[in-house]
Amino acid sequence: SKTLRVAVIPGDGIGTEVMPWGVKCLQATAKVFNISIEFEHFDFASCEYYQKHGDMMPANWKEQLIGFDAIYFGAVGMPNLVPDDVSLWGSLLKFRREFDQYVNLRPCRLMPGVKCPLAGKKPGDIDFWIVRENTEGEYSSIGGKMFEGTDREVVIQETVMSRVGVDRILRYAFELAKSRPRKRLTSATKSNGISITMPYWDGRVSEMHKNYPEINLDKYHIDILTAHFVGRPEIFDVIVGSNLFGDILSDLGPACTGTIAIAPSANINPEGKFPSLFEPVHGSAPDIVGKNLANPIGMIWAGQMLLQHFGHTEAADALLKAIERILERSEASVLTPDMGGMGTTQALGEAIEREI
Amino acid sequence: SKTLRVAVIPGDGIGTEVMPWGVKCLQATAKVFNISIEFEHFDFASCEYYQKHGDMMPANWKEQLIGFDAIYFGAVGMPNLVPDDVSLWGSLLKFRREFDQYVNLRPCRLMPGVKCPLAGKKPGDIDFWIVRENTEGEYSSIGGKMFEGTDREVVIQETVMSRVGVDRILRYAFELAKSRPRKRLTSATKSNGISITMPYWDGRVSEMHKNYPEINLDKYHIDILTAHFVGRPEIFDVIVGSNLFGDILSDLGPACTGTIAIAPSANINPEGKFPSLFEPVHGSAPDIVGKNLANPIGMIWAGQMLLQHFGHTEAADALLKAIERILERSEASVLTPDMGGMGTTQALGEAIEREI
Ligand SMILES: CC(C)[C@H](C(=O)O)[C@@H](O)C(=O)O
Ligand SMILES: CC(C)[C@H](C(=O)O)[C@@H](O)C(=O)O
Repeated sequence: SKTLRVAVIPGDGIGTEVMPWGVKCLQATAKVFNISIEFEHFDFASCEYYQKHGDMMPANWKEQLIGFDAIYFGAVGMPNLVPDDVSLWGSLLKFRREFDQYVNLRPCRLMPGVKCPLAGKKPGDIDFWIVRENTEGEYSSIGGKMFEGTDREVVIQETVMSRVGVDRILRYAFELAKSRPRKRLTSATKSNGISITMPYWDGRVSEMHKNYPEINLDKYHIDILTAHFVGRPEIFDVIVGSNLFGDILSDLGPACTGTIAIAPSANINPEGKFPSLFEPVHGSAPDIVGKNLANPIGMIWAGQMLLQHFGHTEAADALLKAIERILERSEASVLTPDMGGMGTTQALGEAIEREI
Repeated sequence: SKTLRVAVIPGDGIGTEVMPWGVKCLQATAKVFNISIEFEHFDFASCEYYQKHGDMMPANWKEQLIGFDAIYFGAVGMPNLVPDDVSLWGSLLKFRREFDQYVNLRPCRLMPGVKCPLAGKKPGDIDFWIVRENTEGEYSSIGGKMFEGTDREVVIQETVMSRVGVDRILRYAFELAKSRPRKRLTSATKSNGISITMPYWDGRVSEMHKNYPEINLDKYHIDILTAHFVGRPEIFDVIVGSNLFGDILSDLGPACTGTIAIAPSANINPEGKFPSLFEPVHGSAPDIVGKNLANPIGMIWAGQMLLQHFGHTEAADALLKAIERILERSEASVLTPDMGGMGTTQALGEAIEREI
């Protein structure tokens, strides 16, 4: 099979610390399963780069990256150096938008050996996917300010939903639900309060459902939906939400399964016209930088999603199993402090690399 | 002291079932503490009313209600009869906006006797307030649709923040934090993704903080904030958020304390120019209507907030104590099924009424 070309962008903070382990584990898995992967490293899309060049990326970033199959991405953000909206809109959010990675896919799974903050849940009880619209919606760049600096000051930002944008993410979510045994899809809405875009979203969901009569569909307003994540997460199978709602749910979901530090995220351009991007859910975590404490599992699991995405199912399964076995074993000298251990980034990374 | 004039609006569904117990408990408390309250009932602001009159309320609803000190409100919404955005924008959201109830105040407290869905938490561990902006922000009525019915269809809704609107809710939140022992305020933001309104919100928070140097301020993006609700809710004291973020957090918070069915909400016009509105957080719950199963505590606790708001502190404390004692006793024949009991609305309502 053809060589996978992967652009490696560590970014900021712990992104640079977990990335080496992500690459090593991918290489180890590729070796076992005889997959050819080529990595190329890039230092842009970081706040350090911004400080040197006044921009998060070079003008020709798109040309530099477009030939790759995938971007393997660490984390971006150093709010003490560069405002978050500048650093993120200049990197991650630009990739998502300009490489049309309109699906953001995130697993929520209670893993063996991970302490669940919810009372009385055991591995297997919680296992669902969040499908997030990743290019439009509440993350818009239209709006502005008027009467600035006065008491009449008013600031407006527009949420934009397009038929194309909504329908394609819904189709992806229905298809995913169809492939699962429970065939259940939950739509996140807020049509009682957000009275223009959200009723539109609901309408498109009903419309799309007509093509998938076998899917067991329900919808919840986002407020009560977050409550159900805590109260009865086992009812969910596939959840689809707008850019903002998907963002919230995909931090809350991993928090409910105790995996916020280890969860991955795939930003997918399903047509393969542009590179897809794979990253951990956690951010750059400036507070623990340089201490060798960052948990590399989110980064490694993101690599697992990369393999899965390109059809290397066996290799992806093996890598996930390796992660699970290390978690299950729960050795204090291996697990990082966020998981209650005393291990280092290196100890945990090496353990998984060996396990492969 | 002067007579409190309270407009009673039961609304829809279980709103009509829990309201009688709210009124009875308020009357019982008023009697003990010698407070004069006058109740007047209104049948509008319900979907039944809508079906008869083609509108949620009569044209002169404002004149009918403006003379009251408070509105005691059940719940609105019967999505099978009237779309949620129509019923809510025609009632509750209209009250909030047109009576300038710009503060939505909601307690999050782990109560004795209530089963907490989070592992290892005990009463006292979680005790914070959510201060929600209640008139503008994401709940806007500006926007629309273009190229309707075609593939080019695009739908826009505007989030609107005004300096007046943002500053007054922040001031309220800082004042509330100042009155509390921990003096801690957390601001909910999403300035990394929502790049116009949210950085503006952050800026106003920093500006207002200058007037309150004694307040220990922090901010979290909404996604990770929901995660912290699950992971370490004990760190919070007062949280302030926009209309949407406040909405989400104030369902999630009670879910984390197991009190979603019993939490109250005060919609306050602090200047007293218009009536304030007191309601349970739960909705109309069409699925359990007519079964005498609805938990009346949210309604009763909302009455407690009403007393508190009008300065009847002793009476409010006594009513809260009565609720707490009933919860602590946890008699299966008294508690409603949502709390693991086999009691009815009536049994639980009567128990609290007697306890007062
Ligand atoms: C019913 C709905 C419009 C309302 C809101 O979103 O404000 C409710 O969820 C609430 O929190 O009071
Ligand atoms: C960093 C931030 C802009 C980003 C988002 O909001 O999309 C992150 O929270 C995520 O979920 O990938």
